Amino acid sequence: MTPGELSIAFFLQVAVILVVCRLVGTAAQRWLGQPRVVGEMIAGVLLGPTLFGAVAPDLQQFLFPEDSKPVLFVIAQFGVGMYMFLVGLGFDRDEFRKGAKGAAAVSIAGMAAPFAVAIAVAPWLMGHGGLFTPAVTRLEATLFMGAAIAITAFPMLARIIHERGLSGSPLGILALSAGAIDDAGAWVLIALLLASFGDGPQVAALAIGGGLTFALLMVLVAPRLLQALARRVKIAGGVDETMLAVVLTLFLLSAWAMDAVGIHAVFGGFLLGTAMPRGLLASEIRAKLEPITVVFLLPFFFTYSGLHTQLSVLADPALLAVAGILLVLSIVAKGGACYAAARFSGQDNATAMGIGALMNARGLMELIVINIGLQRGVITPALFSMLVVMAIVTTLMASPLFEVFYARRARQKGWI
Amino acid sequence: MTPGELSIAFFLQVAVILVVCRLVGTAAQRWLGQPRVVGEMIAGVLLGPTLFGAVAPDLQQFLFPEDSKPVLFVIAQFGVGMYMFLVGLGFDRDEFRKGAKGAAAVSIAGMAAPFAVAIAVAPWLMGHGGLFTPAVTRLEATLFMGAAIAITAFPMLARIIHERGLSGSPLGILALSAGAIDDAGAWVLIALLLASFGDGPQVAALAIGGGLTFALLMVLVAPRLLQALARRVKIAGGVDETMLAVVLTLFLLSAWAMDAVGIHAVFGGFLLGTAMPRGLLASEIRAKLEPITVVFLLPFFFTYSGLHTQLSVLADPALLAVAGILLVLSIVAKGGACYAAARFSGQDNATAMGIGALMNARGLMELIVINIGLQRGVITPALFSMLVVMAIVTTLMASPLFEVFYARRARQKGWI
Repeated sequence: MTPGELSIAFFLQVAVILVVCRLVGTAAQRWLGQPRVVGEMIAGVLLGPTLFGAVAPDLQQFLFPEDSKPVLFVIAQFGVGMYMFLVGLGFDRDEFRKGAKGAAAVSIAGMAAPFAVAIAVAPWLMGHGGLFTPAVTRLEATLFMGAAIAITAFPMLARIIHERGLSGSPLGILALSAGAIDDAGAWVLIALLLASFGDGPQVAALAIGGGLTFALLMVLVAPRLLQALARRVKIAGGVDETMLAVVLTLFLLSAWAMDAVGIHAVFGGFLLGTAMPRGLLASEIRAKLEPITVVFLLPFFFTYSGLHTQLSVLADPALLAVAGILLVLSIVAKGGACYAAARFSGQDNATAMGIGALMNARGLMELIVINIGLQRGVITPALFSMLVVMAIVTTLMASPLFEVFYARRARQKGWI
Repeated sequence: MTPGELSIAFFLQVAVILVVCRLVGTAAQRWLGQPRVVGEMIAGVLLGPTLFGAVAPDLQQFLFPEDSKPVLFVIAQFGVGMYMFLVGLGFDRDEFRKGAKGAAAVSIAGMAAPFAVAIAVAPWLMGHGGLFTPAVTRLEATLFMGAAIAITAFPMLARIIHERGLSGSPLGILALSAGAIDDAGAWVLIALLLASFGDGPQVAALAIGGGLTFALLMVLVAPRLLQALARRVKIAGGVDETMLAVVLTLFLLSAWAMDAVGIHAVFGGFLLGTAMPRGLLASEIRAKLEPITVVFLLPFFFTYSGLHTQLSVLADPALLAVAGILLVLSIVAKGGACYAAARFSGQDNATAMGIGALMNARGLMELIVINIGLQRGVITPALFSMLVVMAIVTTLMASPLFEVFYARRARQKGWI
């Protein structure tokens, strides 16, 4: 396709993506009481080969021609990097520090149990064949599965807790801290995996060295330097066009740096986000970038992800069994372990169940992790599709379980 | 390049584009008293083969690899379509109707003189060889040159007039109305050209029929239908995510429809913009989309345009002479004719000079026209480069001339 044809296809394609994601997202929200993100994840899968491609293959080919996929991919990467930047901007460093001690039991359980499961299942999955690529070592498969099971839909968890006014409650403090710590841990695992999964020790050294340098820069140096921007915004009374350009450029360079050393753009975005000064700068940047990121850019990511999800692989009973076992183990290792740890550290049953339900939701974060795995050639489309199902099911479970086990009792007892 | 490599290149590329456009734009604004857009047009040329490509060809190839150009192009098209949508949103239909009569002389002169010049120069330019593609007929070359000479930087003109508080002055009313009418006329010429420049009469019929149907729809039917959106926004008290998605979808479908029938995405965007209801909906949509369009998306267009501008063709004395003659004729035919018509219809000399200076600026609108010409294979890179120079020079002239001939006297006489 010529660039001209590509751009014509693009306008229609994006219209379809926006409409389908919005409709399914709204349906999930209104009729199922689910967070919108679940609906959009499902919308992506519906646009892929499983439904749209099976029912109307010609139309699907017309709307999503092969040549257009690089454009979709680039915008999806940009969107998901930008989303992680906004997640970082909303990340409360003080909450993280203060809550870390109290949340130790839950967060350790939420890392240790998934990792134990990963150690157990990695050889079994590798033995199955066709799930990991041949180049993957046992250690790498274990790191990947550990991260994939341990990750939490942290932004969704934070939104549920803030929306329900639970930020100061024992559940809120515990879940926010433990979720943040576990996600940080899972991302470190992914970073280590990507660093090791290169072409030899030099590539790994660059990735580990580059990643560490960047992380230290963002934790120790950048917050102070970026105060200059906050001061300028305070004096100007808002974020003008030049400041928007400066912030976008910092984001692009951070995303590029982490991509270029062999880790991933999302780390650059997230770490820069955590390093940005809070206050007017952060709130105005969110106001300017969040609508377009959530409404326009993320649907590219859901769609790109969905185009690679082939649920028909689950028609094979053996693979369906693997998917089922993975799903159950993931729920037990994350939701179950966090519940048990919360109980063990003295929470009542309702609070512990609520924490287990929230920590078990993996949402968009899981989708990001497994897309990185697929893109870098760690996992195959078959395992990718199984983990898409796991991401959707564990996210779908969260809201009803939270409602039944925690919110209902909390209302009865007057906690919320 | 793999999609992964493309996306890494993308982050760095966009950072460079943003930084260069912002810096040169700010320099033009601060040190030359020019509108930012002139600086960004020049920034695009600097990033192209003329400067960056000549000084550091390897680095330029690294930053703008051939494979990344389709992505750049698609985003540039999206950005320029979105920009025209916002221009349409800011277009005052009442001003256009009310002022049309009084502005008749200036607007007719601003169309007739460029068209007369186009009739005269088209055969001469075609005789030169290497400026138009072989497939172009004399009529098509005339239509193209007529539009390219007649077009006005309407959004820039409107901004200058509103910023200086001249909206109610004779100059303001005259320039806004005449500029709007001439731009509408020039776009009709371009639409006719694109319709005729297809593969046979069926393609032309589709383009003309489709374009007319769409235009009538947007003028007669859409404004009433879109009132429903305005009501919803009024009740909700603002534009929520769903409304943003609806507006973006309408834009994408309009842009696609005009692209698909063979006219161009910018028409879809612009016409939809004029049809949107004014008030809270329009102002909130502008607030949400304008910063990201101007700061982030338009620089893609300037860069894509600049990457195709090869000023070294002007090293050939014959071509330099052609470029110089074209430049002088364009200034005389547009600025000169509008000045004369304003004088003739009773304006004083200062006002007439001010109008001539503003109408002669072609800015981004010219860049859009000639990019369409290049992309559709009407003109060659050589003529494209000449017209880039014409666009930049006529835009650069506008502010100082306006200052010297009109604004200084207007201040002395207490008009502003």
